[in-house]
Amino acid sequence: MRQFIVLSHTATTDPDFALDDLAGGAGRLDVLCRCVNSAFFLSHAIREGVRVFLVLSDSVTVRLEGSELRYMNPDERNIASLLRQALESREGAIGHSEVESTPGIYVSNRGFESVVQAAGREGTLVQLQEGGDPLAELDPPEHPVFVLSDHQDFTETEAAMLQSEADHRISVGPKPLHADHTISVVHNFMDTNGYTGY
Amino acid sequence: MRQFIVLSHTATTDPDFALDDLAGGAGRLDVLCRCVNSAFFLSHAIREGVRVFLVLSDSVTVRLEGSELRYMNPDERNIASLLRQALESREGAIGHSEVESTPGIYVSNRGFESVVQAAGREGTLVQLQEGGDPLAELDPPEHPVFVLSDHQDFTETEAAMLQSEADHRISVGPKPLHADHTISVVHNFMDTNGYTGY
Repeated sequence: MRQFIVLSHTATTDPDFALDDLAGGAGRLDVLCRCVNSAFFLSHAIREGVRVFLVLSDSVTVRLEGSELRYMNPDERNIASLLRQALESREGAIGHSEVESTPGIYVSNRGFESVVQAAGREGTLVQLQEGGDPLAELDPPEHPVFVLSDHQDFTETEAAMLQSEADHRISVGPKPLHADHTISVVHNFMDTNGYTGY
Repeated sequence: MRQFIVLSHTATTDPDFALDDLAGGAGRLDVLCRCVNSAFFLSHAIREGVRVFLVLSDSVTVRLEGSELRYMNPDERNIASLLRQALESREGAIGHSEVESTPGIYVSNRGFESVVQAAGREGTLVQLQEGGDPLAELDPPEHPVFVLSDHQDFTETEAAMLQSEADHRISVGPKPLHADHTISVVHNFMDTNGYTGY
């Protein structure tokens, strides 16, 4: 299992947003849509061994399971419509319990620290961050959990939590990349150097 | 200068398409929008030393210059709106002459072979294709021109032309990737191993 946790500091948790305004009224939900695209799509296939957690504004988490996903197309608008359905289903989620909104997509009222700690118990936490160790030096973990921030840096509180939880702090290259581009690079590194089957 | 030529077999050349239907009525223009995103965007910056040619249905070419681009946001809808403006400006383009539609975006009535041959005279043509040589074995060219197809393979005619024109035939990894993901991987390879400044 290859996992990604993407934290959005700005995405709306209210499903009442316009699909025409993902980069505006939806609080840069376009960033998360592109991360979902990069995490799951191969040419004419889905990476079935991938799990993604999108943490929205530290209060809502959407979990996507590659092995269960159906009806997802790679364009931002389509992915956003599935995320909107997840947010619409959220009222059925009590505490940390999850509700499945569409096949392979689950929503819960969980925050960033809870998601990171739970995933860290199952796998090797790799924080992706400018200024980290070079990706080429990472010995590919068997069950990696890559943790990324959106277009904003981790806050001091988030960074401190990751400092204590993460097993590695890695930078994918000399240029500061968008989160979705980082996911593409990490996938390729793992495809080439790590365990296959994802 | 780092250049990318992306061939679309299906994208519309008619500007009368809906921004709500990029993956449908616009003939998978979403694929090209994501390629533009991957080619140009760094975190909070544009790659100024990058040039992209989008070849639509082998009859219209849109050239984008990183050093001149303005008003471009990374979401598909915004990029599509700029491409639509380019297609609207196309009627002013006579023969192979170009018309600038918005800053840094130029449209002409050029086809794939013409674009590939002209770019190949200025740089090293690298065809990106499943089954090619491993990317890690590529000695990074100083002026690479990467050539990619959209969600469809190159046709036999296109492949034969590239067979005679391309200097290298490279595969970025063991998995078949989307064109935009391939661009992210190639950029990272060049950032890490090649000439910087892009």
